Amino acid sequence: MREFEWIGKAAELFGREHDGAPVGIGDDCALLTGPGPVLASIDTVVAGVHFEPCLMTAPDIGWRALAVALSDLAACGADPARPIHVLLSLQLPDDFPDTELLGLAAGLRDCAREHGGRIVGGDTVGTPGPLAITVTVLGSADRPVWRRGARPGDLLVVTGELGAAGLGLAALRAGWDDDDARRCALAYRRPRARLAAGFALARVATALIDISDGLLQDLGHVGAASGVGANVDLDRLPVAAAAREVARRLGADPLEYAAGFGDEYQLLAAVPPSRLAELAGELPDLTPIGEFVAGSAVVARQNGRPVEPRRRGYEHGRKK
Amino acid sequence: MREFEWIGKAAELFGREHDGAPVGIGDDCALLTGPGPVLASIDTVVAGVHFEPCLMTAPDIGWRALAVALSDLAACGADPARPIHVLLSLQLPDDFPDTELLGLAAGLRDCAREHGGRIVGGDTVGTPGPLAITVTVLGSADRPVWRRGARPGDLLVVTGELGAAGLGLAALRAGWDDDDARRCALAYRRPRARLAAGFALARVATALIDISDGLLQDLGHVGAASGVGANVDLDRLPVAAAAREVARRLGADPLEYAAGFGDEYQLLAAVPPSRLAELAGELPDLTPIGEFVAGSAVVARQNGRPVEPRRRGYEHGRKK
Repeated sequence: MREFEWIGKAAELFGREHDGAPVGIGDDCALLTGPGPVLASIDTVVAGVHFEPCLMTAPDIGWRALAVALSDLAACGADPARPIHVLLSLQLPDDFPDTELLGLAAGLRDCAREHGGRIVGGDTVGTPGPLAITVTVLGSADRPVWRRGARPGDLLVVTGELGAAGLGLAALRAGWDDDDARRCALAYRRPRARLAAGFALARVATALIDISDGLLQDLGHVGAASGVGANVDLDRLPVAAAAREVARRLGADPLEYAAGFGDEYQLLAAVPPSRLAELAGELPDLTPIGEFVAGSAVVARQNGRPVEPRRRGYEHGRKK
Repeated sequence: MREFEWIGKAAELFGREHDGAPVGIGDDCALLTGPGPVLASIDTVVAGVHFEPCLMTAPDIGWRALAVALSDLAACGADPARPIHVLLSLQLPDDFPDTELLGLAAGLRDCAREHGGRIVGGDTVGTPGPLAITVTVLGSADRPVWRRGARPGDLLVVTGELGAAGLGLAALRAGWDDDDARRCALAYRRPRARLAAGFALARVATALIDISDGLLQDLGHVGAASGVGANVDLDRLPVAAAAREVARRLGADPLEYAAGFGDEYQLLAAVPPSRLAELAGELPDLTPIGEFVAGSAVVARQNGRPVEPRRRGYEHGRKK
């Protein structure tokens, strides 16, 4: 498929216009008219660096690239009822088959539909390097929440269950295909951005972030931006049952994955204790795992004692 | 430099907040509050595919990556008086030196300043592939102009001078360093997005596009989107004097470069004849080069006769 043929095909797959985007794919710019201030984020995933292409299908890769970017909107409390617009840049190896391109596109489209996003524009280029996908997401919020704002005394809460993504990758590498392994693998291959949870949290949270780089590391970002420290009780981490089972078989510590793997795309928030109860009905999967304190240190505890976790998270070192 | 150190450095270089962007670099999203409908575009350049890294400095590469993206805003008539926001994704080879990264950043910052844009967010990742830069630009216009809308009888006009970018690349390859060669090389290394011209044209143009893929090819896009054909008189193309001189020394036809090279980032517009005079004062470098006609063919003429140009433009074939 040549460039202009693909652009036509992409316009069919993703739609040429949408509510709040009267001009989409096919011109030099998209026109967006959604209400409210714009939240904008950009994210790139590179094959072999951010995901393992041989362990995923093309639709998985497309889905994941978009979910990762949407998670940044969730992490700022974007309103899921407002239009969410997506711009894609696909960097395709010269020998990338058309079937794989259409697979990527199907995954991107399905992920957009699942999260209420619309793909309104893009760019497709060839590269002698690996497959890479850059996604820009644009959302909106009247009351966005940032990394800064956590105060000593705020509770540290996390959404959902942890550990499955990292152990899913391990299970995929091991070639396991039982129910627990598949459940974990799905968390790695098809993460969901917690848009509704982020919007609910935004009503009460003083700080918010997604766990993309690893819980302890992302907690460190909130602490640094807010000028506070935090205590986190590893025993209270909501580790997924399937993750515990896969870890047991691997002889691994599931807490190491839950606390330090990243790629979870759950949300971490600072919430004043007096306001936690307001969220219980709306967010039944919210777990308090510690509190923010004066100072600057992020201290992990296990059995009541400070511990030094083997893994705090992932930093993309640019140099060997 | 590691990732988080670089993010801090980028925030210093590009600024943490701006008018219309109260939250910029350093959180999960940027917050944009500029007035009016949003124009959005994304563009990727890959070393060795879209530019020749050994012929350019790091600041050149940064400048060019941003100018190319800003040109899409110009091509839709974005208002240069409104905030223009930029999101960057840098894909850096693992051995990419810090001095080169800071050089890229300086070029990006200088280009943003020159065009009144603000870098509000980004993502930096490592890659085993070549250097690649993805730029998302967000602008605004009350009256954007699209590729569609040209009507039979409209004049075909082009801004600025043509041919210098392509002949500049040829001069760089040849290692020439005289005044004409340098002038052409600068057009290739440091293109400018014609934002003010695009905004002025938007008042009267029925269709607008930038010449990034080559004049004849981009004219074909306008024709296809508008459902019209066009006649273009190659003898009227405003070929830059320096381009003519470099072409002469190369034994090349400067019209071939002016009509089909691309990377020019001048604007091509359809303008009703009755409204051309309104633009003369504001856009002295506007040249009528043909007219739109009924039908679907783009016909190039030379000495009054139809000709088949050797080169119509660049299509990124994704497959060998």
